[in-house]
Amino acid sequence: MSFGPDCFTPMSRLAGTCYYEGIMISQTAISHLVEKLGRSNVLHEKEDLLTLAFDATPGLNLLPDVVVYPTTTDHVLTAMGIAHREGLPLVPRGSGTGLSGGSVPAKGGMVLAMTRMNRILEIDEANLTATAETGVITLDLFNAVAEKGLFYPPDPGSQKISTLGGNVMEDAGGLRGLKYGVTRDYVMALKCVLPDGSIITTGGKSVKDVAGYSFKDLLVGSEGTLGIITEVTVKLIPPPQDKRTFLAYFDDIRVAGEAVSKIIAAKIIPSTMEIMDRATINCVEDYVKIGLPRQMAALLLIEVDGHPAMVAEDAEGVQKILKQVKATEVHVAKDADEAASLAAARRTALSALARVSPTTLLEDATVPRSRLAETFAEIGRLTEKYKLKVGTFGHAGDGNLHPTVLCDERDLDEMERAHAFYDELYEKVLAWGGTVSGEHGIGLAKKEYLARQIGEGGVRVMKRIKHAFDPEGILNPGKIFEDEDLSTRSYKEDGSRVSP
Amino acid sequence: MSFGPDCFTPMSRLAGTCYYEGIMISQTAISHLVEKLGRSNVLHEKEDLLTLAFDATPGLNLLPDVVVYPTTTDHVLTAMGIAHREGLPLVPRGSGTGLSGGSVPAKGGMVLAMTRMNRILEIDEANLTATAETGVITLDLFNAVAEKGLFYPPDPGSQKISTLGGNVMEDAGGLRGLKYGVTRDYVMALKCVLPDGSIITTGGKSVKDVAGYSFKDLLVGSEGTLGIITEVTVKLIPPPQDKRTFLAYFDDIRVAGEAVSKIIAAKIIPSTMEIMDRATINCVEDYVKIGLPRQMAALLLIEVDGHPAMVAEDAEGVQKILKQVKATEVHVAKDADEAASLAAARRTALSALARVSPTTLLEDATVPRSRLAETFAEIGRLTEKYKLKVGTFGHAGDGNLHPTVLCDERDLDEMERAHAFYDELYEKVLAWGGTVSGEHGIGLAKKEYLARQIGEGGVRVMKRIKHAFDPEGILNPGKIFEDEDLSTRSYKEDGSRVSP
Repeated sequence: MSFGPDCFTPMSRLAGTCYYEGIMISQTAISHLVEKLGRSNVLHEKEDLLTLAFDATPGLNLLPDVVVYPTTTDHVLTAMGIAHREGLPLVPRGSGTGLSGGSVPAKGGMVLAMTRMNRILEIDEANLTATAETGVITLDLFNAVAEKGLFYPPDPGSQKISTLGGNVMEDAGGLRGLKYGVTRDYVMALKCVLPDGSIITTGGKSVKDVAGYSFKDLLVGSEGTLGIITEVTVKLIPPPQDKRTFLAYFDDIRVAGEAVSKIIAAKIIPSTMEIMDRATINCVEDYVKIGLPRQMAALLLIEVDGHPAMVAEDAEGVQKILKQVKATEVHVAKDADEAASLAAARRTALSALARVSPTTLLEDATVPRSRLAETFAEIGRLTEKYKLKVGTFGHAGDGNLHPTVLCDERDLDEMERAHAFYDELYEKVLAWGGTVSGEHGIGLAKKEYLARQIGEGGVRVMKRIKHAFDPEGILNPGKIFEDEDLSTRSYKEDGSRVSP
Repeated sequence: MSFGPDCFTPMSRLAGTCYYEGIMISQTAISHLVEKLGRSNVLHEKEDLLTLAFDATPGLNLLPDVVVYPTTTDHVLTAMGIAHREGLPLVPRGSGTGLSGGSVPAKGGMVLAMTRMNRILEIDEANLTATAETGVITLDLFNAVAEKGLFYPPDPGSQKISTLGGNVMEDAGGLRGLKYGVTRDYVMALKCVLPDGSIITTGGKSVKDVAGYSFKDLLVGSEGTLGIITEVTVKLIPPPQDKRTFLAYFDDIRVAGEAVSKIIAAKIIPSTMEIMDRATINCVEDYVKIGLPRQMAALLLIEVDGHPAMVAEDAEGVQKILKQVKATEVHVAKDADEAASLAAARRTALSALARVSPTTLLEDATVPRSRLAETFAEIGRLTEKYKLKVGTFGHAGDGNLHPTVLCDERDLDEMERAHAFYDELYEKVLAWGGTVSGEHGIGLAKKEYLARQIGEGGVRVMKRIKHAFDPEGILNPGKIFEDEDLSTRSYKEDGSRVSP
């Protein structure tokens, strides 16, 4: 086996691609998979495998040995059995929009692409729930429940492509998180295949459930390392009846941070308070051309929603605060179409930034909201100190920022500076009680930071939990923390495993 | 050692009290505790121990060997160390208002009474959080944040006595759960002493955090079996500006269930929809004497809150549905005082029922809301079948009911019938996708039901998680599931443990 030397370090250290060469799958296992899942659901030619060797995280490209597309929970169980017999890593994957390498097959093995399990099984209007297979596209679910007059709030930036299962495994956030919370807040039940070969359903349509440890809450955000979820039941709520959208521009990004803190402190909870700095504004404007003012230091996209009377009051409150802090300009969207196009422009931020440099290193720093202005100041200071090009955008209302270094992975000196930039930034973020990941997960790219946040003791307990679920270390190995190395595993021709 | 024969079976099988006699604590350990915690924080005379041998669960009365009152996290750590050295169970406890025996020292050992760690450490108005020690009384926290114009929604029935830490450990619900959720939904961070002697803080003031497995969410509802929490940071929200309270009376309790389902299906989410059946109405009226009509089959206490304009609309919508389903009478509270007294009357339900019979067996059956009417019908059928006196009340909006058998533990035939009643009821509840505990936890009293809900496989995984945190089985043994029996443990005079 061989790893590229820098594969499992923070993104800023990742340069080039690397391949894991330690695992091969037996012909017996391939035949078994084909027999059980059907030929079209099993891919093992290199040209097929290449397309599933990465997610949306830059610099990570690791080949699986085989890719299977289960279409039933039983297919997943079959794959789990074969993975155990062969000592093969099993790596679940949605659409691959993840931003920390969570679904990249770090140690080769079998990728379980869940995208063909994409049926919406039920929308239960009496209990306000929806049940869907994990491969359903987030926006498809949103639209299906909207047709029934209901609302599924979580809206990750990638909602047009991302899957519900991927959202659950990373506990994805989104633009509406400030008021409505994140994916975790809507998961009511999970159907899950555990490594020991049992199929469990944890949670249900009851809105309260305290029967033992909450597997459901442990599985949410577990990045495919504890079980493979096949069905998800989510909570729905009545949709907001009204919405008002603003764009506020600022000469100084710290003032934007101050505005956010003041709005919250005034007990106004907008559904959305998104920020873009000057670099991001310019990249977005280059991309979508909707007339954003290029000279501004920052903009806030603010949406208030709910009952029309409350929306009117909140809108007034927000405008008053924006005036108080001396926002340079406040633009009110004239109608729903304009509001939608402003939100869509914000959603392009990452793509827009990614267009302008060979490498885009995106981070997910999150601080208590009261620290926003300081965080912007710190990002500014570090950008200068390390002579980098940085675009920052994100969910300001949640204190969840995506400072993005625009660089070139071939420039090793620049990559080192980028690493130092994040390193120093996270030191402050952690000192302020923040987190190294607000919504992207730890995956492969952020393992080094995790220990700094939760300590070696915390990592130790996580490993023990992992071991409790998956003693063989089959599920998505190498993610969140270093786990048992599978490289010493091998198998016999009959498909049975040789114990190390 | 000796157990009463029926100690660890569902409540309806509990008759009389029993004592665990397998453990004794060494004089060395007592001296060590007194030295570290102070004489007034260590109780070990039998007459002191008697007062901490039970919680609010009927029929459970088990003596600890020693009770300590930590006043700092370091005290908890000291207790953890001594418990390990002595092989002593360590049982955390708040005010003992639990309803499943979670804080009863099932296997003796050291009770850690957290009630002297009751300081509110911070109310952070910028980040909308409060941080308090675990022993703070729930209502004290509510009042303290209310003074700052903020709102901590979870309001378990026992909020005047219960502690925040106890609420977190049982994931307590409350009357406002329907709109505002349960304790879990407000826990942002926990400071926790783990059995391995590490002190961790999991979570923080950042509203989003996906850095590895969510310990926080695993600890919530873990009933003191995984770690001892010493500080809790909770989320606060702006308070509702307005509220309207109704009492609706029904000739047929199933119609009350139907009303609840119809209100939700109409996309109106009241903060509260509480139900009392005829038996409960009568007991409450005997107790508080506020003029409740004794002949009615059921009443619903409904509160809508929020922005005044929304409250007005929701109130109208609720009244329209109550008319549609032909509620017998609808009474609108004329002012806040009357609303408060109606809610207070509902809060007395359990005490009011408990006054009329020697033994009160309370259950915590929870169903998807659409099954409410059927559940009431089933409770009625089973009440007749088993010739019991049953009062039912609870959080109808959450599908969370407390069918309460009023009986006499000395009448063994009646106790058997009570057991059969719950047994058959839970069979239906589980078939309908419900849960055996909505808000009281599994504790000692409901272990038999847990396996029926989540299966032996589920229990097995829970045991593995328990082992990952607490390999020695020190923390609150005998709860949720049967764990390692400590009875073979003993210790030397120097306080060190003799391995079994």
